[in-house]
Amino acid sequence: MAEIQGVTARRARVDGERTRRLILHTAVRLATVEGLDGLSIGTLAHATQLSKSGVYAHFDSKADLQLATVDSARALFIDVVVAPVLQLRGLDRLRALCESFLAYVENGTLPGGCFFAAAAAELGGRPGPLRERVAANQKDWIGVLTAAANEAVSRNELRGDTDVATLVFELNALVIAANTAYILHDDPAVLTQARTAIERVILATTAA
Amino acid sequence: MAEIQGVTARRARVDGERTRRLILHTAVRLATVEGLDGLSIGTLAHATQLSKSGVYAHFDSKADLQLATVDSARALFIDVVVAPVLQLRGLDRLRALCESFLAYVENGTLPGGCFFAAAAAELGGRPGPLRERVAANQKDWIGVLTAAANEAVSRNELRGDTDVATLVFELNALVIAANTAYILHDDPAVLTQARTAIERVILATTAA
Repeated sequence: MAEIQGVTARRARVDGERTRRLILHTAVRLATVEGLDGLSIGTLAHATQLSKSGVYAHFDSKADLQLATVDSARALFIDVVVAPVLQLRGLDRLRALCESFLAYVENGTLPGGCFFAAAAAELGGRPGPLRERVAANQKDWIGVLTAAANEAVSRNELRGDTDVATLVFELNALVIAANTAYILHDDPAVLTQARTAIERVILATTAA
Repeated sequence: MAEIQGVTARRARVDGERTRRLILHTAVRLATVEGLDGLSIGTLAHATQLSKSGVYAHFDSKADLQLATVDSARALFIDVVVAPVLQLRGLDRLRALCESFLAYVENGTLPGGCFFAAAAAELGGRPGPLRERVAANQKDWIGVLTAAANEAVSRNELRGDTDVATLVFELNALVIAANTAYILHDDPAVLTQARTAIERVILATTAA
């Protein structure tokens, strides 16, 4: 009897986690189109075909749901953009990070393009815990690019006098601009422009 | 008597135009923080201290209000960013356009930074007349930068083989990235990074 109860409890927990993941997966997609502000227990219940109380069981409040959505988008970003290129080093990794970001946009991973680009623009002028969470993720991404660029300098793949902060600012600007223009105009030409510009920026800083 | 009625009608019209401008001025500012979707007759009545019917008298619907807000933001952008540099030519104009965009962000012209950067990110994934209006404005801005860059080429200030589309893509990416990072992190260092990167991009394409 105790064993059956244990199995039942485990199953309920596994089901609960699966439901929570389904809600958050939906929330990440929805937020890229409707904004983090467009998320509500009601919209998510509708989109996931759960009852409102089914969604409430996982998130106490809209604020709680929004923060969990940012964390879920972070996990997706790491899985899709960052993790696949970690076996590369230095300049190869730096190039591959830009390319995997562009592929994440081009492949329509999320309907409204990069989650963090949309969230940064939405929350920019609104201080608070949600903006802090988004800003921290954005800094982490800059950190990942910076580490790869620094490694490229120490491996003599980029010049020793490279202004790494400016280089990373440029590369990030190019991939984000490609995301925004691609989503706004549905025009793949901007991805080609971004790729050309990225190569130009990198070539300008490679060791002679 | 007819003359007095004429004067009264003219005054009412002038008052009406002034009220409409006040509402739209408020709407442009508000939209950079709350999004175009955050605009409603109710919020604007509250923010302008007009009655709801006072706002309704000028805009039939939320959609009408949003489109008028985009047009008002366009007029502001032209006044503040584009018009002041039109006496310059070629490369001087291209540099000045980038700089006046950065100043428009740095001076806190609007509380949430560039109106169009925020609107593009908000509406990117939502086709419709509002997105089209924002996209058309964004193309016009790219057109203004492109015309200046083309003139710089024809004046031999930029190299004859300059890939103007990529150059403009880069410059626009840099000013928009500066806007987003400045608003998100409240850190003026990103404006310096953008200025350094812009000079680097321009220097790489100036005639030898």
